[in-house]
Amino acid sequence: MTDTSPVKWHLAHTTWFFETFVLEALNDDYRPFHPDFRTLFNSYYHSVGSQHPRPRRGLLTRPSLEHVFQYREHVEQAVTAALERGDVGEPLQPVLDLGLHHEQQHQELILTDVKNLFAQTCLESAYANAPETAVRPTAPLAWKSFAGDIHRIGNDGSGFAFDNELPRHRVVIEPFSLADRLITNGEYCEFIEAGGYRDPILWLSDGWAILAERGWDSPLYWSGETDSRRVFTLNGSRHLRRDEPVTHLSYFEADAFARWAGARLPTEAEWELAAGGELKEGNFVESKLFHPRPRPERATGAEAMQLFGDVWEWTRSPFAPYPGYRPPAGALGEYNGKFMANQMTLRGGSCATPRSHIRATYRNFFPPDARWQFSGLRLAKDG
Amino acid sequence: MTDTSPVKWHLAHTTWFFETFVLEALNDDYRPFHPDFRTLFNSYYHSVGSQHPRPRRGLLTRPSLEHVFQYREHVEQAVTAALERGDVGEPLQPVLDLGLHHEQQHQELILTDVKNLFAQTCLESAYANAPETAVRPTAPLAWKSFAGDIHRIGNDGSGFAFDNELPRHRVVIEPFSLADRLITNGEYCEFIEAGGYRDPILWLSDGWAILAERGWDSPLYWSGETDSRRVFTLNGSRHLRRDEPVTHLSYFEADAFARWAGARLPTEAEWELAAGGELKEGNFVESKLFHPRPRPERATGAEAMQLFGDVWEWTRSPFAPYPGYRPPAGALGEYNGKFMANQMTLRGGSCATPRSHIRATYRNFFPPDARWQFSGLRLAKDG
Amino acid sequence: MTDTSPVKWHLAHTTWFFETFVLEALNDDYRPFHPDFRTLFNSYYHSVGSQHPRPRRGLLTRPSLEHVFQYREHVEQAVTAALERGDVGEPLQPVLDLGLHHEQQHQELILTDVKNLFAQTCLESAYANAPETAVRPTAPLAWKSFAGDIHRIGNDGSGFAFDNELPRHRVVIEPFSLADRLITNGEYCEFIEAGGYRDPILWLSDGWAILAERGWDSPLYWSGETDSRRVFTLNGSRHLRRDEPVTHLSYFEADAFARWAGARLPTEAEWELAAGGELKEGNFVESKLFHPRPRPERATGAEAMQLFGDVWEWTRSPFAPYPGYRPPAGALGEYNGKFMANQMTLRGGSCATPRSHIRATYRNFFPPDARWQFSGLRLAKDG
Amino acid sequence: MTDTSPVKWHLAHTTWFFETFVLEALNDDYRPFHPDFRTLFNSYYHSVGSQHPRPRRGLLTRPSLEHVFQYREHVEQAVTAALERGDVGEPLQPVLDLGLHHEQQHQELILTDVKNLFAQTCLESAYANAPETAVRPTAPLAWKSFAGDIHRIGNDGSGFAFDNELPRHRVVIEPFSLADRLITNGEYCEFIEAGGYRDPILWLSDGWAILAERGWDSPLYWSGETDSRRVFTLNGSRHLRRDEPVTHLSYFEADAFARWAGARLPTEAEWELAAGGELKEGNFVESKLFHPRPRPERATGAEAMQLFGDVWEWTRSPFAPYPGYRPPAGALGEYNGKFMANQMTLRGGSCATPRSHIRATYRNFFPPDARWQFSGLRLAKDG
Repeated sequence: MTDTSPVKWHLAHTTWFFETFVLEALNDDYRPFHPDFRTLFNSYYHSVGSQHPRPRRGLLTRPSLEHVFQYREHVEQAVTAALERGDVGEPLQPVLDLGLHHEQQHQELILTDVKNLFAQTCLESAYANAPETAVRPTAPLAWKSFAGDIHRIGNDGSGFAFDNELPRHRVVIEPFSLADRLITNGEYCEFIEAGGYRDPILWLSDGWAILAERGWDSPLYWSGETDSRRVFTLNGSRHLRRDEPVTHLSYFEADAFARWAGARLPTEAEWELAAGGELKEGNFVESKLFHPRPRPERATGAEAMQLFGDVWEWTRSPFAPYPGYRPPAGALGEYNGKFMANQMTLRGGSCATPRSHIRATYRNFFPPDARWQFSGLRLAKDG
Repeated sequence: MTDTSPVKWHLAHTTWFFETFVLEALNDDYRPFHPDFRTLFNSYYHSVGSQHPRPRRGLLTRPSLEHVFQYREHVEQAVTAALERGDVGEPLQPVLDLGLHHEQQHQELILTDVKNLFAQTCLESAYANAPETAVRPTAPLAWKSFAGDIHRIGNDGSGFAFDNELPRHRVVIEPFSLADRLITNGEYCEFIEAGGYRDPILWLSDGWAILAERGWDSPLYWSGETDSRRVFTLNGSRHLRRDEPVTHLSYFEADAFARWAGARLPTEAEWELAAGGELKEGNFVESKLFHPRPRPERATGAEAMQLFGDVWEWTRSPFAPYPGYRPPAGALGEYNGKFMANQMTLRGGSCATPRSHIRATYRNFFPPDARWQFSGLRLAKDG
Repeated sequence: MTDTSPVKWHLAHTTWFFETFVLEALNDDYRPFHPDFRTLFNSYYHSVGSQHPRPRRGLLTRPSLEHVFQYREHVEQAVTAALERGDVGEPLQPVLDLGLHHEQQHQELILTDVKNLFAQTCLESAYANAPETAVRPTAPLAWKSFAGDIHRIGNDGSGFAFDNELPRHRVVIEPFSLADRLITNGEYCEFIEAGGYRDPILWLSDGWAILAERGWDSPLYWSGETDSRRVFTLNGSRHLRRDEPVTHLSYFEADAFARWAGARLPTEAEWELAAGGELKEGNFVESKLFHPRPRPERATGAEAMQLFGDVWEWTRSPFAPYPGYRPPAGALGEYNGKFMANQMTLRGGSCATPRSHIRATYRNFFPPDARWQFSGLRLAKDG
Repeated sequence: MTDTSPVKWHLAHTTWFFETFVLEALNDDYRPFHPDFRTLFNSYYHSVGSQHPRPRRGLLTRPSLEHVFQYREHVEQAVTAALERGDVGEPLQPVLDLGLHHEQQHQELILTDVKNLFAQTCLESAYANAPETAVRPTAPLAWKSFAGDIHRIGNDGSGFAFDNELPRHRVVIEPFSLADRLITNGEYCEFIEAGGYRDPILWLSDGWAILAERGWDSPLYWSGETDSRRVFTLNGSRHLRRDEPVTHLSYFEADAFARWAGARLPTEAEWELAAGGELKEGNFVESKLFHPRPRPERATGAEAMQLFGDVWEWTRSPFAPYPGYRPPAGALGEYNGKFMANQMTLRGGSCATPRSHIRATYRNFFPPDARWQFSGLRLAKDG
């Protein structure tokens, strides 16, 4: 799967970020740890130079893992020393912050990429080992209404935020309702059994073409038929639990499910409006479950809508610039802005996201056919 | 080019639309003109049944052109007879209207597809023969300012409109300025000569990948180098005129040009706001020029901003549903809604569009790499 | 199908051959009929210059068919005049001969390409209209034995021959037997019904991969299931006749059938040895059947083994140079020699071959996955 | 590179061969070491069942290398025990022999696959470390003549041989001459500098298409220009030595060089005739050079023609069955026979081949575009 990278590469790339954008910026005569690493661990920054081809990252036998750890140690010490010397002032402080959030993003990717790799083997591979709990009935889905108005979304810039969350701006939101929880595996099974993957009327045109080409008939990592479905997880292969939120869906699948259910996906503005009033609690990577968790039956208050954690929620909003958006000057301008075509926005973080990484204004984005992230869905409807 | 179809196919497909959605709806026992045409000339309506594979449309030696004309005659007579008998009431009247606007869309596609086909031959082929006029200097580009406010866009439904133009709804538009004319070939040449096609920082990530894969270094149909550029037109091969609006650009190229120029593309809401106050005048298919025309030097009033005709203007807005959008029930629900992913919106019509077909609220859409339409650009900027 | 070309292209290409290799050779100042035709109708002669891309031949709207006929007329008159003036001496005489045999090859290709094109349409298309005769039982297959020895194969050069048939040379042929007729549709149906297309053990590795990729489950142009099989022919769609020789097989299919039948395909030396003693009689293009014909029940003498006409017979011999083979100098050296990799040899001509074109030493060649020629099979076995 | 496999896979696959074809055959109730290994380490034996997809072998994180070593130990002990008990009689003894020779083939593949993998990294990777010796002038190429006659080639079956070497049979060989040594890097550089990669007349048609598609302009693993050429080797990156035999050529390149040199490649019969009289001495894997070695200046006797070791020599013979060839019954019939299409025969072994593995009758085979083996060339000519 050419979208994924080896763990070793992620470890080195996040260090490369600090070396390139902090250490090199601090010292014009900076001597890199290894001259070839500049190309090898550059992901997509054309401003920095050429890149090792992405699909060949898996073929790197050198540097060794040990060598990568030396690289990390070396760069970390140099950055720490610079901080202690007070060398890192404006404008480098925000770059350092960005580097930390960047590393958090790759922590999540390490988990999703390892999962994808393990799933290639028919042998039993497990990254973690979480105990099973009893399956409980899913509470009926309820709708929470929101009044239409002129609202403000986007980050106000008082804390850390990626450039794509800025600026905070006005939007018109018409009255809408949002489901009070995520869609479950059980509900998704009903969609499958009702012929959801065989009815072109439910699908976007591009989605139907991809479904046919790739032979999709269920979410990624599912196997088996109706009564004996199994799912590959970071805890190994397990029986599918009907009470868990469905995950590893493409946008096309989430959108088709919503159409089948007589509803639609929320816009990112709707989602953000709803999330703005919620405490940021949920099932994050710190739970070490590495799997979406059924919603507690009588959730109240903070976690009431299961908006944060568990699974990234596909929205119907294409990833586009906010009014007044300006990417930073230089190479860091390549961080987000150049991906603003052919991608859809996801919100809320997942069970593989660090809690401190997520915000109500956070915009994740992937192409509509991507399925290897922990991506699921919540329904919305007009009025 | 698998996006294009033969003229014969367009002629039969537009007739198929009337036969399938009008004549069949009028008569449960309708006997089709030819049983195989239902599949052969179905473009993408899964509700109607299977389709002849799009890339193989060019291989159809049968039916002959004469047979297709008989088909058109047959269906036209049957529809006319039904109209005269007063059989076509609600709800079929809107379908008939849709069929007429659908045929206008294919009139434009016939021209762009024929152009693409002619360009495959190294021999001189010309569809029309328009006289050349003298090249005149282009007036400097001026900016027209618009105040920010809550505006309404979308069609009010009082006349014909496609479903995707509905409903009329409120949007926040921040203060912006719009260029008072289209970008010209001359300006686009400056972009090329400044290395625009060689600088990845100017390009969206997907665009840069496609540029590399397809070897793009100029708009479609251009050939030759700096001082001897030629362009293939429906009037045959000609010297490139620096005063004409640039056309046959992908979204990626339009977007890269705008970034290079220190500006951006307008959103579709901005464009519609500006166009709402303009008379719908411009260079349409009726001019028989089949080529974008330089803007008259002292244009005033109606045509002041060159918003209609000449070239479709790429906007930075992904083609997405308006708030409250609902596709019609049945097969006609497939007309627009299922294409709402991975496409960008274009506005204003082109020199191949019938004048009566275009509106300020009209939303055209193509994937961001499409170049065979008459697509060009206008700059916008914040504030 | 990118292997095929339009009729118009074949007509012009065969004329291009005479213009390029005869008229240009006669006159250093030769002015071509049209300067672009040199590229447009060059098939694969790199020595002559660049070529219009093969898959785009079908997109040529210009020159028109009428223009091509003018081209043919023009070149034919010029060649005739040169002949009458006595200008065409050695060494041009053999080139003229080659041009005539070249044109015969394209006469066959016109028929197979038209057939392929007609088959793309679901509508009824027919090139010819041959009356049906009653289906008769097929005589049991008998084996004819040949003693092993040192034989000579290859052309002795006394009449016209392509370079690849030369030189005549010694080969060891071990004792073998050859079936006295071609394999029929009925026999091939037994192979299909016995699961021949589902058993990987019967197939060459490359063949099995292609079968899976292209979904092959019967010869090209077959449709329907066991008892209602139909076949598309140049006489339109017909019921499959079990008594006709099977045709439109790839080498992989012919080879798999032979393995299933406990036999093998003959080598080209074995075939040539057998054919050397036969009169060249059979079902050629002159019969205007355009379809392989069942073998007459009591065939004797000349036509006894059905070796000539009907279908090209795949041999197990890769198309390779004979010992001492030398391609001609210059562009005509590209005629055959450069195809001596990844192709298999076929023998005997088909129902689309002119009778005067075929010889016992004639070597046709196609890649092992090609099916659009009239290609079938005859069994052989050791001893 | 989808032709290559990880070392771990090779280690397990060769053990799988013994488990599947020896241990399972000995015991109907045999319990496999691990049930999933049957699929995971099956290369291409359809008779044995399904196979893990070849291009995904590199994604197997499980079983671990340690687990594979346990597998090897387990199977080796079981086979040894069976041998000691005297259980392995006819007809299993030849299968055991085949398993050993099979393992030798994979020893060579491990080296060529590791080399390919190391070459993906821009970092310095080296498998071995052989000292450099001084570059010496290459002795002029001399020709050794062979008289034409009826000869016998193929294995007489007295020792171990693969099925494809059988049976020994008569062939006509016309008088020919063979170069007394391999072509060197220096000579190949002359071909490149004379424009060999830019002249289509030198190339087979399929070869020219592949050259264009893949951008070939030198052998695999070469980099740099005329005077500063480097080559990647299992001893790391080195300056190109003009005195070493050229290697990592495709058949298309070897064939083009020969045409440019006014010669041709030998047939496999010619090669075998020449090698039959030679002692089997040369540069094999035991030398631990892992690189072709310049021919000693005054080689005499045994090694006189450099026929064995160093590089596999492409012949102009397609890989085809010998007269009377019969693959073994059952799964082992898939070992060689099913690859007898679209491949060319190579002879003589390489610097990565175990000495005891090679014979004068040994037939190696690869598709004509394969370059990752140690493949080079020797010239031949008629007469």
